[in-house]
Amino acid sequence: MADPWETKITEVKPNKLSIRGYKLDDLIGNVSYTMGIFLLLRGRLPSESEQKVFNAILVATMDHGVTAPSAVAARTVASCGVPITTALAAGILAVGDYHGGAGEQCMRYLQTILLNKPENQSLPELAERAVKSSRERKERIPGYGHRYHTDDPRTKKLLEIAKESNIIENYTTLALLIENELQKQSGRILPLNVDGAIGALLGDMGFPPEVGKAIFAISRITGLTAHVLEELKERPVRTIIPEQAKYTGPQNKKI
Amino acid sequence: MADPWETKITEVKPNKLSIRGYKLDDLIGNVSYTMGIFLLLRGRLPSESEQKVFNAILVATMDHGVTAPSAVAARTVASCGVPITTALAAGILAVGDYHGGAGEQCMRYLQTILLNKPENQSLPELAERAVKSSRERKERIPGYGHRYHTDDPRTKKLLEIAKESNIIENYTTLALLIENELQKQSGRILPLNVDGAIGALLGDMGFPPEVGKAIFAISRITGLTAHVLEELKERPVRTIIPEQAKYTGPQNKKI
Amino acid sequence: MADPWETKITEVKPNKLSIRGYKLDDLIGNVSYTMGIFLLLRGRLPSESEQKVFNAILVATMDHGVTAPSAVAARTVASCGVPITTALAAGILAVGDYHGGAGEQCMRYLQTILLNKPENQSLPELAERAVKSSRERKERIPGYGHRYHTDDPRTKKLLEIAKESNIIENYTTLALLIENELQKQSGRILPLNVDGAIGALLGDMGFPPEVGKAIFAISRITGLTAHVLEELKERPVRTIIPEQAKYTGPQNKKI
Amino acid sequence: MADPWETKITEVKPNKLSIRGYKLDDLIGNVSYTMGIFLLLRGRLPSESEQKVFNAILVATMDHGVTAPSAVAARTVASCGVPITTALAAGILAVGDYHGGAGEQCMRYLQTILLNKPENQSLPELAERAVKSSRERKERIPGYGHRYHTDDPRTKKLLEIAKESNIIENYTTLALLIENELQKQSGRILPLNVDGAIGALLGDMGFPPEVGKAIFAISRITGLTAHVLEELKERPVRTIIPEQAKYTGPQNKKI
Repeated sequence: MADPWETKITEVKPNKLSIRGYKLDDLIGNVSYTMGIFLLLRGRLPSESEQKVFNAILVATMDHGVTAPSAVAARTVASCGVPITTALAAGILAVGDYHGGAGEQCMRYLQTILLNKPENQSLPELAERAVKSSRERKERIPGYGHRYHTDDPRTKKLLEIAKESNIIENYTTLALLIENELQKQSGRILPLNVDGAIGALLGDMGFPPEVGKAIFAISRITGLTAHVLEELKERPVRTIIPEQAKYTGPQNKKI
Repeated sequence: MADPWETKITEVKPNKLSIRGYKLDDLIGNVSYTMGIFLLLRGRLPSESEQKVFNAILVATMDHGVTAPSAVAARTVASCGVPITTALAAGILAVGDYHGGAGEQCMRYLQTILLNKPENQSLPELAERAVKSSRERKERIPGYGHRYHTDDPRTKKLLEIAKESNIIENYTTLALLIENELQKQSGRILPLNVDGAIGALLGDMGFPPEVGKAIFAISRITGLTAHVLEELKERPVRTIIPEQAKYTGPQNKKI
Repeated sequence: MADPWETKITEVKPNKLSIRGYKLDDLIGNVSYTMGIFLLLRGRLPSESEQKVFNAILVATMDHGVTAPSAVAARTVASCGVPITTALAAGILAVGDYHGGAGEQCMRYLQTILLNKPENQSLPELAERAVKSSRERKERIPGYGHRYHTDDPRTKKLLEIAKESNIIENYTTLALLIENELQKQSGRILPLNVDGAIGALLGDMGFPPEVGKAIFAISRITGLTAHVLEELKERPVRTIIPEQAKYTGPQNKKI
Repeated sequence: MADPWETKITEVKPNKLSIRGYKLDDLIGNVSYTMGIFLLLRGRLPSESEQKVFNAILVATMDHGVTAPSAVAARTVASCGVPITTALAAGILAVGDYHGGAGEQCMRYLQTILLNKPENQSLPELAERAVKSSRERKERIPGYGHRYHTDDPRTKKLLEIAKESNIIENYTTLALLIENELQKQSGRILPLNVDGAIGALLGDMGFPPEVGKAIFAISRITGLTAHVLEELKERPVRTIIPEQAKYTGPQNKKI
């Protein structure tokens, strides 16, 4: 028989449930789902500022329309006559190194630099060296540039909220210094993209890199659900060509 | 070539993204993730009350420890040397009629009764008839009783918040009347369980039954992530026996 | 602790493995994979004839090009930077009621008729009644007609082999009588399709209906592997439009 | 609109299907499923000898009882009330670096050595150097030793068939030389395991390493189907403890 083992997540007894040490009936009604996600992944509740930034991150990636490969995979599977959760899982499977993975890669890249930072070197010096080295090895730095958005409104807004919330530390500072250096050394604008910004902010809030794709999945599963529900109204087994989709929903709504 | 088709979810143009008609950079920082989920699934932002109840629902189901089959599936797959999102998808696949599905079934059950409600019949009469008929056919009404929790603290708290928030309508009223009738006609207490309560509340907020398992998945993917991250610290390909797990995390935390 | 339980599939002891009672090292080298599949699913080895027909079935469905939704799902996921088996699983998820499911439905349909067959009624009478009833209720009989192939070469070949192999019993006989009746009563040709033929033949070999989609998956995973391997040579995260694919492989090969 | 693209797998026209250039109705009845798998993955039909060895490989890995994590994942998901293919996909997701992945790793390891083989060095010299280097770096060579079987009957049988079939080339020769060297240099027996043997044989038949896990999945999906069908007879949402399973199937069958 396998050995006893330990878990530090949730305690389940008859009529008594606790998550990370908090009674679940204390959490229900007193914390938002965003706080719950933070609690489960980081082991503690977020500060007011962290909550604001984490909310912003989760909202920023919750959907990217019908062209995202996860949406195509989920809709394709949904059109075959399977349960909704089967289709959602197919969408989650599409979250990989090339889709929803740039945040993790950027976080890992920044982490490697920061963990190896020599005492006497400043962040601007690190950024300069990092860009130089990437240019010499002709390697892209993950989290910069976007195949579609040249001036991504999500990145701008995320960084704005992060600044207001005072949560920016070494990760985001370094990420922005690298953005600067990239322009300085190449002469071209290669902006920090939404994945890169999220990676940097998660790093500053103490998340480990390996959680990057999971947080993307926690957010994107919402968009995938909307896509699957919409797809279920179409005829079964249709070919889904994202480029032929026309947006016919509401326009110009104000909050 | 396949025909053009319509989508009403997200509009994606270079440097411009809108979800359900709202600019994404307006949503980021101004709405919580919970509001974002509601917006994507219901097509509109929630009221203050709806937000409170929807938050409570999402927090209530975000984890149920290592015995949940979705946790076992996700941890088992995670122990085999695959990406974290592959393991999460395996967990989502375990959400089915017998795990995370009772809310949907209860919603569908209540919906059928309410849609076929004769003009001249009151909700208490409907409840009486429903329980009678289920007893005659010896069929369980979905959403009542729990194999583990006899007095589920989550249900109590959810209903408390719902009452305070004034969102209770026909679904939850009928669900509670049925709980009463079950006791009256059988002499045994068979309480509305957490899935049943969630199904009824979602019905009162206008969600269609088919969204039940998806909302469970949107919530539970968070717990699954915590389980997968914890599992990745164990040795690979181990046999995961939930009953041999011991909770060794923090205790008695206060919010 | 959960109760002991029984399994009748495989016995694993140190240095000793048996499947369905046969030592695995006796099976290796002495039976074909097709025989192994039959053994695992039916609990016994196939006869020579059954082996021939079962081989034919597995070969018939192993691929249907890039337009199959399972191929689209698998290729879409493969293009996102995930392990090959993650992409294969996404393809398997697409096997559902509307893709690879017709065989199971046809088997179930025929089974229902045969299990309820009155003593004094002949198969031709049953077929006549079945078609009449389906026309009155305006319901399609599963396993007839194809959205693409009007005269499917696979069906013809499968039935030819089945006839030569003498394995045709009530299921296939009834399926063919129904094909006849459909033409007689409607005046139109609505041929037994490949899924219907496979369902009927599996029924005659004693497989239960619920195994239908699984056998399709066992066969189709091979085609999916070929698609995923081909996709991995393309650039990542591309939009896969089946209709724009051009077959450029070899032509007119002879066995 | 996305660009046209090429596929070399299957050509689909109305009433005409070809795989790798062969008309599908020529393949049906004339080739075994094993030959079909080989054709789809290698682009050509196998020789008599290759067919024999490939059959042996597919049979060798088709099941390993209820303790395999893929069986646990598939059964756990199956117990939740989902379609059979959803459960099979969960099992496939468990095929990873630590489960069904050793063959690929061994193939890759041997390939790296063989591709970098200096002109003037013999295979025995390469084996000696490889073992020495692995011992110095304290790294395990993938494909040797087994946590459970010390003298795996599958390996012995596979190599026996391979020898009879004359398909052994550099991969398997090197793999066996390394087995020898491991014993010579360490004094302990660390036998080539079933995954290692399969990896070496697939390498000798010209398969690329990345196909390793896929071939394991093509074979194991059969065992998973048997497990899922068996599990569906158990009560839903049960905890599946492999160590408490007792084999109660047939014994000592002869082919």
